[in-house]
Order: sequence, then structure tokens, then C-alpha cells
Amino acid sequence: MTVKYLLDEKEMPKQWYNLAADLPSKPLPPLGPDGKPISAQALAPVFPMNIIEQEVSSERWIDIPPEVGEMLSRWRPTPLRRAVFLERALGTPAKIFYKDESVSPAGSHKPNTAVAQAYYNKVFGIKHLTTETGAGQWGSALSFACSLVGLECKVFMVRVSFEQKPYRKFLMEAWGGKCIPSPSKETNFGRRILAEMPDTPGSLGIAISEAIEAAVSDASGKTRYSLGSVLNHVMLHQTVIGLEAQKQMAAAGESPDVVIGCVGGGSNFAGLSFPFIREKIHGKKIDVIAVEPSSCPTLTKAPFGYDHGDTAKMTPLLAMHSLGHAFVPTAIHAGGLRYHGMAPLVSQAVEDGLARAEAIPQLECFEAAILFARTEGILPAPETSHAIASAVRAAKRAKAEGKSKVILFNLSGHGFLDLSGYDKYLSGKLIDHEMTDAEVEVSRECLSGFPNPADVRKSL
Amino acid sequence: MTVKYLLDEKEMPKQWYNLAADLPSKPLPPLGPDGKPISAQALAPVFPMNIIEQEVSSERWIDIPPEVGEMLSRWRPTPLRRAVFLERALGTPAKIFYKDESVSPAGSHKPNTAVAQAYYNKVFGIKHLTTETGAGQWGSALSFACSLVGLECKVFMVRVSFEQKPYRKFLMEAWGGKCIPSPSKETNFGRRILAEMPDTPGSLGIAISEAIEAAVSDASGKTRYSLGSVLNHVMLHQTVIGLEAQKQMAAAGESPDVVIGCVGGGSNFAGLSFPFIREKIHGKKIDVIAVEPSSCPTLTKAPFGYDHGDTAKMTPLLAMHSLGHAFVPTAIHAGGLRYHGMAPLVSQAVEDGLARAEAIPQLECFEAAILFARTEGILPAPETSHAIASAVRAAKRAKAEGKSKVILFNLSGHGFLDLSGYDKYLSGKLIDHEMTDAEVEVSRECLSGFPNPADVRKSL
Repeated sequence: MTVKYLLDEKEMPKQWYNLAADLPSKPLPPLGPDGKPISAQALAPVFPMNIIEQEVSSERWIDIPPEVGEMLSRWRPTPLRRAVFLERALGTPAKIFYKDESVSPAGSHKPNTAVAQAYYNKVFGIKHLTTETGAGQWGSALSFACSLVGLECKVFMVRVSFEQKPYRKFLMEAWGGKCIPSPSKETNFGRRILAEMPDTPGSLGIAISEAIEAAVSDASGKTRYSLGSVLNHVMLHQTVIGLEAQKQMAAAGESPDVVIGCVGGGSNFAGLSFPFIREKIHGKKIDVIAVEPSSCPTLTKAPFGYDHGDTAKMTPLLAMHSLGHAFVPTAIHAGGLRYHGMAPLVSQAVEDGLARAEAIPQLECFEAAILFARTEGILPAPETSHAIASAVRAAKRAKAEGKSKVILFNLSGHGFLDLSGYDKYLSGKLIDHEMTDAEVEVSRECLSGFPNPADVRKSL
Repeated sequence: MTVKYLLDEKEMPKQWYNLAADLPSKPLPPLGPDGKPISAQALAPVFPMNIIEQEVSSERWIDIPPEVGEMLSRWRPTPLRRAVFLERALGTPAKIFYKDESVSPAGSHKPNTAVAQAYYNKVFGIKHLTTETGAGQWGSALSFACSLVGLECKVFMVRVSFEQKPYRKFLMEAWGGKCIPSPSKETNFGRRILAEMPDTPGSLGIAISEAIEAAVSDASGKTRYSLGSVLNHVMLHQTVIGLEAQKQMAAAGESPDVVIGCVGGGSNFAGLSFPFIREKIHGKKIDVIAVEPSSCPTLTKAPFGYDHGDTAKMTPLLAMHSLGHAFVPTAIHAGGLRYHGMAPLVSQAVEDGLARAEAIPQLECFEAAILFARTEGILPAPETSHAIASAVRAAKRAKAEGKSKVILFNLSGHGFLDLSGYDKYLSGKLIDHEMTDAEVEVSRECLSGFPNPADVRKSL
């Protein structure tokens, strides 16, 4: 029985795929403080211009620079695996495949965009990058990428994860990065939050605000900010996952009926699913599922609207599903999924009916993760466990219906640095928290007065 | 520039290589309490007979059961990588290659033998396995393997590592294994040690004694003991590493002048080097280096003799280099290398001039590990850092001599679960400890009266 499908290095994608070129509804523009679409130039203090060009591009295919390809080839193409042992344990007629992004040196899909962003910043003459991180996957990945190209890296890490996962800091430091808990005393915004809420667990929104402030306030002009999810160029860089998976599924003689990824900001989901959404746009029938935690139900409970990407309202307004930029999610163990907003391209795909969302509570996710570890052998990250739980649900549906579905999910990262979460789960110390509609309404109060996407679309 | 050499799954070795068949000096037999070679039957309470048969085999090639091959194929063949970025940083004319065993689900080479041992025990009708672990790599690997074949697994973990590396326990538990610090109150021997030395950091020798006692004292007869290194069958199972590397080096158009592995009990070193030692026996010139910590200089400072493999003297006497079964090494961070003895096959290879030993202090190893992480991107286990430090020394020698040597080392595991050691190193809290000749003499006093290998060889 074949359990893995490898791809020759020569088969690595030479171009990234840009879903913006194919979405039925043209993506809505980011808006400035005046409610008008912002110019590319307005983003220049935050990002280098070569990345901004990608961010606003509507080209379908964008060349991967050979230098980026060389860095990616250290661990890519990643394996596509068939989860035969999980299938047997579930007694399902479904075939379950997963793309194994855990094999990168940083242990997740995050380096796919980290090496690209580090490269573009280096080429643009930048010396230092700042960023935020939730669970620590992104901060590790950017530290790794910066060590490869020779940039300094400072990471603002959401405090609850910083405390739950001390090893993440050590890992970033091993790669030469600096990691500090957010909110911190290093920024005006961090100091303000600490004064108002000294015991806050922090959030990705707060950490993003601090990292942007640290970048734009460097008078040398040699510092920029780097984001590990949400933005168009990040989704773009991640599409190598799905482009490889298409070739590997073909090599396996299969085509997925269901494509699954977990979503925080949306990047690993987008990376796997966007090339398949392209097939769907061209008529193929695929159930594309974005899985989020019940405690942070951005896509399932929050409407599509305009909101800031960060808590301090430093970013432009983005058209996305949002629980409100002031929202601080419960301290669940899937720290990478604790984000109030969503990648605009993912939100638009959901709005256009090309993908659907599913919310799953964390205990069901950990249960699926343990089943996966004990059958497939790989211990997944808590974030990834959401995709596994959804795949298990889909496999059980197939069993109930007696249908031989082909399920593909993204194994976005391993859990070696998240073992305290597993310990808490196995010793019965974790609980579920489901956010109610009423709670969502309250958390979205900070959005009142922001433009309505439908109005903006009419005005274009 | 090609940075990795993959091998098709079809090219996986179908047989293990047994160095015992080719060693110039026939391996010396294990001796019983009476000083006479023990029978295979005498080992039956400890190991299943199918493994004992492998242990005493002098066949050159032994078939890998297809069921074991299927388990290995989940992550094998592993990549051979060229360390071009490390080479550039060192400015060396040497070419450095490494076999990347960190890609297994447990993160090291250990699953190569764990899945084989779990399989043979399962086939023999065993229900439970006991074992010891130093750094935790082996305990994790056996828990992983037991979860795949459906065996219960109990791991006695050396106390200093248990305390330094809490995540290792959580990982074993995620795979369904049980992990307890050694010395423990679960065995007579553990209770005795705790009474005598309540603050002992523990040692592999003590943990082995406890695990054997726990196995042989189970009245059901359904429990056996499993060892992660030292014994012939473990070396055998690891040779898939070197057999794959031979094909990959050929694909790279190179042949190694230097082959390096770190040694605790000897298994990852043996796995990579034995197939190359076979080439050396057939006339090829290769410098084969076994690297150990200066604080536990088994091969470099202790003579070849007969000694027990464990502290409680439960194992037969083995012909090996030994610091004495009562030796408790300093609490360095490379817990997997803290072993008083050595694989008899490795010791015999060194005695026969087919390999040589090198001792390196831990600070030099951590320095090399950080350089490796910041150039190659992969964070190695502290044990593995010894092989890297030796490769760096070899590359610097090549530079000094202006020679283009080809260096191959075994990247035996990643360091994601050893980050507290990196933190201590980076914050300047680690020190070196070199064991003196006088200390070695004292630690070997417990060997007085044991048979002399030369006498035993004469009597055969």
C-alpha cells in the first residue's frame, strides 16, 4: 500500500497562483482613514515596494524568483501522504490524503512565505524585520528565514502563547531572532494596553499593532514589517502547497471531493485550497472547508464587513469577516487561530460560495489529533488538529452515507512545541468554550460607522 | 546548486547489513555470571526468540520483513543533504553531506529499530514492552512504534533528562506510552538506588536495570524488554541509514573520505558507518569517526574489556569499552550520550582499526549546532551536535591543508524537544566538564575480576 507520494524537485512550481485573478467578485480594496481606497504608496513605510506590488497584483501567475526557489527546495516539494492507518481506524470507505507541511525546518507551512518575504526585503535594502506571532509558528519561521538571508528579526509574541510555549522563544533565539511577549513596554501601544489591562493574555491584533509601530517608528528607514497571514501576498506565496498537491493527487490517480484547511488568518487554508478553488471555478465539484475554533468563530458567526487588521487600528480597513479588532479570544491552545479577522481573499471566496466554514470545539480537535498520532504517527500542531477533526467528520459522513469520498487536508504543522497543550488535554484540564451570537454582537460594536462592502463595491 | 538527494521508495534496502559477518576479529560472545559464553535460551526471559536469533546471527544480510518495510516507508528513504550553506560559512574546500534522520515522526533515527523490535515482539505474542531512555529520543520512538503495532509501552527515563525535558514525557503519552523518572519506586533496584542516593541524576545504566527488572518480573510472560542501542540487532536495524546513504552519495557523484556519527550506545554511528566500514574492509580509504562527549569518554579513555550493560549487573558481560557499570556521567545536555559502555560491534571495529574515536566538549558542540541552525536551517539535537562539531573540525582541517575532502555525517535527530539546553547555552549557563584519566581509573574499579577479552578470545 502506497502511503506517500513524493514529487521530484524539478516538479516544484515555478510560479505562484493568484486567486484574485479568478474570483467571480473582484476583491474589494483596502480603505484608508477617509474611507477611500488607499494607494500602494501609503503602504511604503510598512512594506517594501516589491511586496506591495504583489499585494495589489491581479496577475494570475507570478514568477517565483530562483533564489526563493532554492530556499524552498531545502524542504520542498513536501510529501503528500495517504492516511491509510487513520482510514482503517475509522472504518471509513473514504480515502484520506494529507499534504505534510510539517517537514520544513521550522515545522510548519509558514516558511513558504517567510523565505519569500525575507528575500524581497533583503533585495529592497531592508536590514531589520518586525513581526508578531500567535502560537509561535510564524515567529519561528521568520527568524529561520532571516537567518538564511541575513536580516535581523524581532518578534512580538502573544503573551498567552509566550507563557504556554517557552520553547518557541528559545527556537527563535537559536536562529538569531529576538522574541518578546506582547503587549510589551517597547511600544506606545503596548504600554497603553498594559496600563489598561495588565493581565491581558494578549491577542494577534495587539501584537500586530506593536510590530507595525516598531517598524514605522525606526528613523533609519531600514526596518519593515512582515505579516505571516491575512494579506494577499502571503496567500500567494502559500499556493505552492496546493499546486504541488494537484500534481501529487494526480500521481495517486485521485481527485479530491473535499479539501480542508484550518483557518486563523487563512494562509495554510489558502495555500492548499486556492489552486483547487480554481478547479471549482472551472466547474469541478469540490467541497472546500475552512475550519476554525468554536471559541473564535470568525467565518461562521461574524458577517463580512470592513475592519482593521490590528487592535490599534494602524492597518487600513480590510474587507473580511471580523469579530471586531478589539476582540481578545479565549486562551485556547491553538494560538495560531486566535485572530479576529480573516484573509480578504478567503472571506471573498466564502462570500462567493467557493468555500464554506466549519467551527469545531478544541476537545474534539485534540481527540482527533491523538487518534491521528496513534495511527499515522505524526503529532500535529493544535491548529492543524482542527483540519484533522474536520477530515474525521467528513470520513464519518462518508461512512454513514456509504460513499467513497476522497478527502484532502493540510497538515500545516507538527506539535513538538505544543506538548504542554497535549499534556493538559490528556490530563483532563482543557475545557471547551463556544462563542455565542450575543457575544459576537458585542465584540463587533467597535465596527460601527465603518463602510459597508456592498456600498464600496457599488462605488468602484 | 543541488542541496538534497532523495531516493525513490522502491530503492529502500530490502535487507539489513550485519557487520559481524565481515569484522576481521570475530565478535566476542556475551558471558554469563560464570564467565562462560551464555546460551541464546538464557536471554529468552528478556527478549523474544526471533530477536535473539538476530542478535547472535553471523549472516551478512538479513531480510527486512515487508511489514517492517511498510512502517519504515512512512518516512524513509530519508534525504541526504549537502550542507552548502555551512560550507560557505566555513569557507572550506570540503564538501559536507549529511543524512537527515530527523524527518521521522519521532524526530530521530531511533524509530528504525523501534518499529522492527515492536514488530518482532508483536509477532512473538508479546503484549507489553519496557525500556529505558536517556534524552527521550528512544522512549519516544518506542512509544510511537508500539502505537503503530498495538503494544503497551513503559519507559524508564533517566531522571536528569526527565526534569530537563518535560515535553518528552508528554510526547510519549500522546502516543500512548507511559513514562516514569528513573530511579523509580517501581522496581527493587530503583528503590535501592533511591535509598542510597536520593539526589542522583540517574543514568542509562540504572534505567536499563529497572526496565529489565520490570520485564522479567512480569509473571504473565507477556512482557519483554527493548533496548534502543548497544546490542547487535539494534546496530543491524540501523544500517538502513548507511545503505541508503551509499546510493545517495553515488547519485551525488561522490564518495566520502570521512564518515562521522556521534556515539552514546553506538546505534546512529553504526547505522551510518557500518556499510562504509564494509567498503573500508574491502580496501577503500575512509576515516570513520565516532564522536563522544568529553564528559563521557568511553571510547577515547576507557580500555576494551568485559562489563555489564547496566548498573545492577542484570545483563550478561559484554566485550566493549566501558567506564564501569557504576559510572554516573555528569548531567550534560546530550542525555543520549551519557552511557558508560558501547556497542560491542562498535568497540570491536575501533579495536580492529576500522574506526577511531574523538571526544568533544559540549560548548564546542553547541557552538557548531548554532552555526548549523543559522546556515542549514535545521536545529539539531544536542547529541547530534557532536557529529556536527566533528564535521566542522574535519572541514577546517581540509581548509588548513587546502584539500577538497568529502565529509559525511549523520544528522541523527532534531532539537525541538531540547530547547532548554539551547537556552542555557545561549544565556551562558553551560560549562564544560572533561573527565580525567584518574577519574576514569576510579570509575572502572567496579570491573576488577571481570574476564579479559584477550583470554576469552584464546579460549574460543
